[in-house]
Amino acid sequence: MEFTKDLCTPALIVDLDKVKKNAGEMLERFQKLGVQLRPHMKTHKTLECADIMTGGSRRCIVVSTLAEASFYADHGYDDILYAYPLPFDKVERCAELAERLTLFHILLDNSAALQELKKRPLKNSKVWHVWMKLDCDNGRAGVPHSDPSALQLAQDISETAGVELTGIYAHCGNTYGCKGEEQIKAVAQETTTFTLQFMEKLKLAGIQGPKSSIGSTPSCSHPVPDMAMLSEVHPGNYVFYDVQQSLIGSCRLEDVAVRVLTRVIGHYPHRNQLLVDCGWAGLSHDGGGRLPTGYAIIEGHPELKLLSMTQEHGRVETISGQLDFSQFPMGTVLSLMPYHACATAMMHPVYFAHSKGKIVATWKPIRGW
Amino acid sequence: MEFTKDLCTPALIVDLDKVKKNAGEMLERFQKLGVQLRPHMKTHKTLECADIMTGGSRRCIVVSTLAEASFYADHGYDDILYAYPLPFDKVERCAELAERLTLFHILLDNSAALQELKKRPLKNSKVWHVWMKLDCDNGRAGVPHSDPSALQLAQDISETAGVELTGIYAHCGNTYGCKGEEQIKAVAQETTTFTLQFMEKLKLAGIQGPKSSIGSTPSCSHPVPDMAMLSEVHPGNYVFYDVQQSLIGSCRLEDVAVRVLTRVIGHYPHRNQLLVDCGWAGLSHDGGGRLPTGYAIIEGHPELKLLSMTQEHGRVETISGQLDFSQFPMGTVLSLMPYHACATAMMHPVYFAHSKGKIVATWKPIRGW
Repeated sequence: MEFTKDLCTPALIVDLDKVKKNAGEMLERFQKLGVQLRPHMKTHKTLECADIMTGGSRRCIVVSTLAEASFYADHGYDDILYAYPLPFDKVERCAELAERLTLFHILLDNSAALQELKKRPLKNSKVWHVWMKLDCDNGRAGVPHSDPSALQLAQDISETAGVELTGIYAHCGNTYGCKGEEQIKAVAQETTTFTLQFMEKLKLAGIQGPKSSIGSTPSCSHPVPDMAMLSEVHPGNYVFYDVQQSLIGSCRLEDVAVRVLTRVIGHYPHRNQLLVDCGWAGLSHDGGGRLPTGYAIIEGHPELKLLSMTQEHGRVETISGQLDFSQFPMGTVLSLMPYHACATAMMHPVYFAHSKGKIVATWKPIRGW
Repeated sequence: MEFTKDLCTPALIVDLDKVKKNAGEMLERFQKLGVQLRPHMKTHKTLECADIMTGGSRRCIVVSTLAEASFYADHGYDDILYAYPLPFDKVERCAELAERLTLFHILLDNSAALQELKKRPLKNSKVWHVWMKLDCDNGRAGVPHSDPSALQLAQDISETAGVELTGIYAHCGNTYGCKGEEQIKAVAQETTTFTLQFMEKLKLAGIQGPKSSIGSTPSCSHPVPDMAMLSEVHPGNYVFYDVQQSLIGSCRLEDVAVRVLTRVIGHYPHRNQLLVDCGWAGLSHDGGGRLPTGYAIIEGHPELKLLSMTQEHGRVETISGQLDFSQFPMGTVLSLMPYHACATAMMHPVYFAHSKGKIVATWKPIRGW
């Protein structure tokens, strides 16, 4: 691609056509299933990518930080779910967003958080829209699905004045341990079953209104038929995908929409290594260098390995045999396919979107909390 | 500290008094040795910290990116060394800085880079101030000190019209493999000896002008007497220090000036874990979780371990035995001492500087390249 010559490196480039394809396929997949897609913004944190993921509606998104929530609200977004265990230092900021937007949802998994909401009733006859996080064996946040306290908390939420139990939310992050579609579908089925069983319990307890939502990029890339019984899904990474997702089996390597461009800045034949101008400041340490090709895949060069990084330097060597330095003159641009797109994108204050061999836009993500 | 209640977490806090102490001791140490301290900005990338490290002179600094160089130049800094193997995509930006500042230095370690400089002579009778990078067995950038091509390149630089061989630069990053002062001093001595031997070779070849500089936080925290024969040193991390530096032996744990504040956002007695609101987005993956306490030291709680992180969540458990959840009510603020301050600082768009129990300033680092 001609434009690679013009960009100062390291640079995060985003293939706009792949982004549109990944986003479009996910929209279509869940439209067919009759399930609302509520895409997660945490991977990219940009307005442009959000517009693509929501099909231009600017409605119905999930965010991981309040900084994201405010950023999207400031740009005309609404129906925003802050899907993070309510942090007590941020209740007032959440209240302000809830009072300002038509729909601002929060999430909790414990009664102490519910008490915090009671202390801060919303103005203008608004109610707190609360999703209860259910842990369907992922083992991060959430009340364990089989624990009697889960139903109790749901009842407490639904019986609290000024608070509405809007939904039940499960993150199937345990799909990240899968290898291949079959394993992914097994976890997707399990999470769906546990969630739907919990919805049944709610119904038996006389609680009929709440929605149900599960999500992760692997499970939403290979949904099981029972997911059609859910109200929503909330994957995020799929818009970019990455090497990790291809190894899990969520996507093919050719679906990965992001790269970090880097340049050769040194030849060291005495140790059979090149230096490139991308260190962990441009790629992150995610993945721990455990790929056969180290910290990334170097596109078009399966013989190379990104062996180690310091802040701004990357050491590249061959997986075996002598490096042919004449193939990589000083200044040569290499293209790194990141192990984890969320972590890599986080390192960049600007992304360069390209289409048909040209840079067509620069995107600026929101940072902070 | 009272202010911890008022900050939204995760938050990077900087102990201003420790920063001043760390910076002051380094300035004094090299003033006594009669060696110019040229502090590196890469760890913090802020104006405020640079002012402290330069003792207010706003002169004589090292940077790792051109974004830093421009940022400091825009704020009245001069005598800036861009100590990074000249990337060919940035020659024009370097030329502009060289033409604008009284002293803007670049660095190179190969003749292809010298050719790039020849192609872009500086205007207004300015010359390129070039430092040649010497690899004194660190094994990253630099011409190997014992390689005859090192002297040849130095000669080529000094004989090129419009270019001045300003100095010889070695980074003793191999001190990061040390344990304790004795090992640090052995590497410092070796790097100093190799560098001074090379300066002798230059002299014998009739090249008398160039300065010499070595640096790394470990070696500059424990300099050997021979370092008095160098012109300059260029450490950077020392202004913050971190857990890694305390393990190497550069500092005591109580010298570490930075923390990430985080809050308890979940109790999970069934798996003996807390969740905190700091994931890798607030701490980085640096260190790989290999500390006995995981990814960080949790201040005042040697019994706790930051076991794992996702983007915005950290899982905390006890190193052994049952967690006493009553000690950590929801919302409790914990203070994480980072493994690697450079990597952690990189994740934050704002740092909160505190002194005597109060937030006294917010610092905004420069990002990008």
